[in-house]
Amino acid sequence: MRFAFGVEYDGTSFSGWQIQKNVRTIQGELAKALSSVANDNIIPIGAGRTDSGVHASGQIGHFDTDVSRTPFQWRAGVNTILPKDVSVQWVRLVDDNFHARDQANCRTYRYNILNQNYRSALNERYAWLIMQDLDDSLMIDALGHLEGKHNFSCFRASGCQAKTPLRHMYSASLTRKERLISIELRANAFLYHMVRNIMGSVIQVGLKKMPPDWIEVLLKSKDRELAGPTAPPQGLCLEKVEFLNYSFS
Amino acid sequence: MRFAFGVEYDGTSFSGWQIQKNVRTIQGELAKALSSVANDNIIPIGAGRTDSGVHASGQIGHFDTDVSRTPFQWRAGVNTILPKDVSVQWVRLVDDNFHARDQANCRTYRYNILNQNYRSALNERYAWLIMQDLDDSLMIDALGHLEGKHNFSCFRASGCQAKTPLRHMYSASLTRKERLISIELRANAFLYHMVRNIMGSVIQVGLKKMPPDWIEVLLKSKDRELAGPTAPPQGLCLEKVEFLNYSFS
Repeated sequence: MRFAFGVEYDGTSFSGWQIQKNVRTIQGELAKALSSVANDNIIPIGAGRTDSGVHASGQIGHFDTDVSRTPFQWRAGVNTILPKDVSVQWVRLVDDNFHARDQANCRTYRYNILNQNYRSALNERYAWLIMQDLDDSLMIDALGHLEGKHNFSCFRASGCQAKTPLRHMYSASLTRKERLISIELRANAFLYHMVRNIMGSVIQVGLKKMPPDWIEVLLKSKDRELAGPTAPPQGLCLEKVEFLNYSFS
Repeated sequence: MRFAFGVEYDGTSFSGWQIQKNVRTIQGELAKALSSVANDNIIPIGAGRTDSGVHASGQIGHFDTDVSRTPFQWRAGVNTILPKDVSVQWVRLVDDNFHARDQANCRTYRYNILNQNYRSALNERYAWLIMQDLDDSLMIDALGHLEGKHNFSCFRASGCQAKTPLRHMYSASLTRKERLISIELRANAFLYHMVRNIMGSVIQVGLKKMPPDWIEVLLKSKDRELAGPTAPPQGLCLEKVEFLNYSFS
């Protein structure tokens, strides 16, 4: 049997999604908890391999098992075992053709920026503090250049294992609520560090160091060296994963 | 010279506001940081003495000093020294008659409840998880009974040092955003554990274990034994402090 599940986590104290020896990962903690409930070896597959320090409110994964438990029993059992900073939201039986990574056709990431001139004890756990004034409309213009099908090599970190740098950005939008700027990127898939590298360049535009159409120059250059630095992980959250033939919301 | 200041903190790892020996308190950390910047002994006074584990996004305090620094220098200096979970938002020179505790005439507290049937890795740092369904309209009715001038003895914890249990509740309201219920209480002042004790009883109404007008029965009884248990601290946040002759917003 194959089960799909929704999972959320506070990435602060994790070395990312992907299971690795001797470090704390979300996939690793889920594997331990699922295996314990099943009394069998289970390693779940996730839709997005989030980096160290990156959060998720809507990550989706799947796992295979012969052990018969109801979705409710899986969730309750796993949440009892999992550490406080990761929790399973739902579990659902799916057919064996479902694949959380290969079949996901849209991922939504949100990047939060706290734009004020002093540090915040309450709001920096899930945001990047930028002390200088940011110009929202310039950043919105910059984000517009990202929409559509592009070669995103200029925002691709070394070590990226994707077969192609081509991605389809469905939308790139910005909203502000007082001092909190929230940028939402929706694409079929993302390259390694792609959102954080995009943010590092969009911030250069918001600070008026570069014009909005610089983003287009970067995309055409396909040169990672020309783009801005990588933004820190704590502002980033995987919010939603969508599938063509499955709806979990 | 007397300076007023705004301060925010994540109360999770603090033993409350009030300075005590051998434990980590907000007043204690502020005293250390202010004293270090001034190179003199400074102990700040706060408008509200929040409990262990309670947060603040809008606490206000004041301190006296002969050391000449601009408000900007005070804030920058203090924030460099303070630990990550407390930060000063602003500093302003006030006249010597200002007193953060004695002159505050309205305090606004918010209590967050996460109402869903599974635990949350992302949303339980600043909310109380209630897994059973809560009825919002019953809770709104219950809150209505709190408004006005009352003897709040039934919600007053032992050890409360206030001279009188009489308080004026200006408003008690509830809003919900999906699974997050947010209750705002505005009063001239609050007794020890008063908000958390109110929450413990309002939840009994939301769970349909008691009717909304039970709140009126409790108020009239003046008996702490009859009211509900104390709600946990992490859902509570001191949001705003107001003064008759001073405006800091």
